[in-house]
Amino acid sequence: MARPETPVNIDEKLAKVTDHWSPKTVLEVNGLEFKAVKVQGDFVWHNHPEGDELFLVVRGELTIDVRDRPSAVVKAGEMFVVPRGVYHKPYAAQECEILVMDPPGVVNTGEVTGELTAEEEWI
Amino acid sequence: MARPETPVNIDEKLAKVTDHWSPKTVLEVNGLEFKAVKVQGDFVWHNHPEGDELFLVVRGELTIDVRDRPSAVVKAGEMFVVPRGVYHKPYAAQECEILVMDPPGVVNTGEVTGELTAEEEWI
Repeated sequence: MARPETPVNIDEKLAKVTDHWSPKTVLEVNGLEFKAVKVQGDFVWHNHPEGDELFLVVRGELTIDVRDRPSAVVKAGEMFVVPRGVYHKPYAAQECEILVMDPPGVVNTGEVTGELTAEEEWI
Repeated sequence: MARPETPVNIDEKLAKVTDHWSPKTVLEVNGLEFKAVKVQGDFVWHNHPEGDELFLVVRGELTIDVRDRPSAVVKAGEMFVVPRGVYHKPYAAQECEILVMDPPGVVNTGEVTGELTAEEEWI
């Protein structure tokens, strides 16, 4: 899918997301992809050697455990970057709606393939 | 300034911005910079040969005239991309608070240097 030529409404995209931990690509910019994601509960420890990962919390609160660094509690209206190759584990006690930005082809579970691993898909 | 290791609160950053059309860098990710900007009134036609420019409207409404394409009206909670090298002119009737994401060193007025040209600064 090409880059949209009209504005992308973040809430409209998030409303189309049905499954937890299943990122859906909504925008491409400078060779990076924004994805709409709903999360709840615990994810797996993983890392992305391809690049930094940006988290932008739209609704709710996301805790990100980061190896060898303090955990981050990211609230609605906040952004947080996990640097390239740094192991991390997101967690949300309640459902949380976020955008992530990654290089194309990044797998949500990084090097850990399992039942939480999602296929790339545009919405 | 290094990449922040704690979450970046978008509203707190925007609250520190006093001048219109004067982007302040708040985050670096994958070699790109997020900047907090308040805008009102008319900007100048310009382009950025260095890369695509992402607009994310936090509060208010931003109109972006784009050469040879329809104008975009970008509302709060919406994102819009102006591709690399494409001439554009933002406009906001009322004050509008936004994030933009650009490659480092991009000048807000592109190739047009004038009274609206801003120096790069982190907040």
